[in-house]
Amino acid sequence: MRRKTRNFMLGNVGIGSNYPVSIQSMCNTATSDAVATLAQLRQLANAGCQISRVSVDKDEDITALYRITAESPLPLVADIQFNAEMALKAVDAGCAAIRLNPGIVRDENMLKSIARKVISANIPIRVGANAGSLPRQEIERKIQNGIPREDAIAEELCHAAYRQCQTLEQYGVHNIKVALKCSDVRVTVKACRRFAGMTGYPLHLGLTEAGTPQRGTVKSAAALGGLLLDGIGDTMRISLTASPVEEVFAAIKILEACGIRDALPEIVSCPSCGRTEIDLFGLTCDIENIIQEFKASGKRTGLKKIAVMGCPVNGPGEARDADLGISGTKNGELIIFRNGTVIRKATRDEALQFFISELEK
Amino acid sequence: MRRKTRNFMLGNVGIGSNYPVSIQSMCNTATSDAVATLAQLRQLANAGCQISRVSVDKDEDITALYRITAESPLPLVADIQFNAEMALKAVDAGCAAIRLNPGIVRDENMLKSIARKVISANIPIRVGANAGSLPRQEIERKIQNGIPREDAIAEELCHAAYRQCQTLEQYGVHNIKVALKCSDVRVTVKACRRFAGMTGYPLHLGLTEAGTPQRGTVKSAAALGGLLLDGIGDTMRISLTASPVEEVFAAIKILEACGIRDALPEIVSCPSCGRTEIDLFGLTCDIENIIQEFKASGKRTGLKKIAVMGCPVNGPGEARDADLGISGTKNGELIIFRNGTVIRKATRDEALQFFISELEK
Repeated sequence: MRRKTRNFMLGNVGIGSNYPVSIQSMCNTATSDAVATLAQLRQLANAGCQISRVSVDKDEDITALYRITAESPLPLVADIQFNAEMALKAVDAGCAAIRLNPGIVRDENMLKSIARKVISANIPIRVGANAGSLPRQEIERKIQNGIPREDAIAEELCHAAYRQCQTLEQYGVHNIKVALKCSDVRVTVKACRRFAGMTGYPLHLGLTEAGTPQRGTVKSAAALGGLLLDGIGDTMRISLTASPVEEVFAAIKILEACGIRDALPEIVSCPSCGRTEIDLFGLTCDIENIIQEFKASGKRTGLKKIAVMGCPVNGPGEARDADLGISGTKNGELIIFRNGTVIRKATRDEALQFFISELEK
Repeated sequence: MRRKTRNFMLGNVGIGSNYPVSIQSMCNTATSDAVATLAQLRQLANAGCQISRVSVDKDEDITALYRITAESPLPLVADIQFNAEMALKAVDAGCAAIRLNPGIVRDENMLKSIARKVISANIPIRVGANAGSLPRQEIERKIQNGIPREDAIAEELCHAAYRQCQTLEQYGVHNIKVALKCSDVRVTVKACRRFAGMTGYPLHLGLTEAGTPQRGTVKSAAALGGLLLDGIGDTMRISLTASPVEEVFAAIKILEACGIRDALPEIVSCPSCGRTEIDLFGLTCDIENIIQEFKASGKRTGLKKIAVMGCPVNGPGEARDADLGISGTKNGELIIFRNGTVIRKATRDEALQFFISELEK
């Protein structure tokens, strides 16, 4: 059961419990380079990204933003850190939301100006608290008072975010989503659970600096899995040391794993045995990647189940209920079968091409 | 806080809340092939595996088991499915535990014989329920009565496991661990949470048929993350369509992600930008893999933090607190630094060799 939250639009994307959990990423191009940033935004949109953040630090970024927002396929969130005036300019330049770090943007007058600006533009604010920019003394004081380190950080994350939400509410801003991030899985999960219980703001889930795709995706899945299964989380970004497109693929995998996004077609692959003469794992990965790209482009297929089997002894028979299947043969060739009946032989390339054409049908 | 459970030994590995969460895998060799199975068991042990399952279906497996248990570096769990008499023979052949599938091994007299056998050998039983071998009619009846499909399956998993535990208890077996597995993340998590609340048996966590390493690891992390963070789970196997060694690496990553295993040395890598002239992601992955293999072999290092940075502009400075760091240079070379001070230039191969020698120190 999804946790009930406020609901509002961020550009064309609904945020909150009335809408599906959305996928975000962040450009790693210089925002001042409109051409490179737009190219990356198009890649992100093709991969299945729905919202992207861009850093906005200086006037050159603002100049480029006017062109970027006009041509971007995705609504943009302006990431504001030390130069808070950029928030006002980013709204004028057409950004669909502003991200403020409560550990950094604290000036009351500035918050008031930003509040007025987003209200007149009718756009939301993301309050994005980050463990790295919390006041250290307060955390240390709690630890000295016997509170475990991870609880102390989680409490301070919630406190920093909540205080900024209250300030913004006083100035009339109600369309707020909140992120509470740490590179530590335990801290992030504790902070999100605590905040979910405290408020009705939509939550933006993610870890900071999760790492490389292999390690970062596991960390993120471990952190977000339990939250999403409990209905907590309305939008998400998987931060990886990798291309932003990889972040989107990782987010899709996590949503599919939790049963929140349709994971069809299902891929069934045998665990392989001594009879396998082909590179079964490589072939299965290739087919997974083809399906991932196909689905990321927003296309849908009628295929419900695809089988990848090591050998023909049991292959077509065991995978009788698969709409489409592929199996190795004794001499390392492949056979393709449909509902258990062999329809053709193929080389690996031919087989992959055939799969693509069948997906498109 | 770890959920309190019964505690017992499985070979030399403690199972239960008094012991660390242990890592299991399962050989995909024919058990009758003692040479191949022993070779794989040695690989698994080197990777950090602590317990391995082997399938025991026929007398040829038993013959080989005598040699395998004598030479195996790991305690072995005999996986019993349709041929329940093999359980008795596997105990005689030196297995450290028996795994029974309650959906398949149901004969009361046979359970009584197995109970006597494990009691005399003083070894535990794993009751391993699997959604694929549950009675379909009971699940369908529940669904017709309005129970959501995933709850119906989770309840039946718990029911099947609990009933077998009760039977075994009647016959005097108390050292029981329980697995409740499905390929669906939601069902598996619901079943484990429910069973954890019902009993004090140690839980063996995992999904069945999780898939390829990339997808299966994400699914497993999403499922196990929330459970482990809540203190549920005493031993685990990550089922992958891949070499069993990959299952061990995936399990280690999940335990590290949840803060249950020491993840030191921490690897910090920058997200890269336009200044990066080297293959930062590839280099970071290489270093991660070196550390993974180093740790899997049971070695420990004094290094706490390792930095991998894209460029020398901020590299050594930003990673000042890293014990050891590596950074690209303008011409695509690498520099190595220690606590912020550059100590040498290196090619990629030299740098990786240097890292290995520093880890060993």
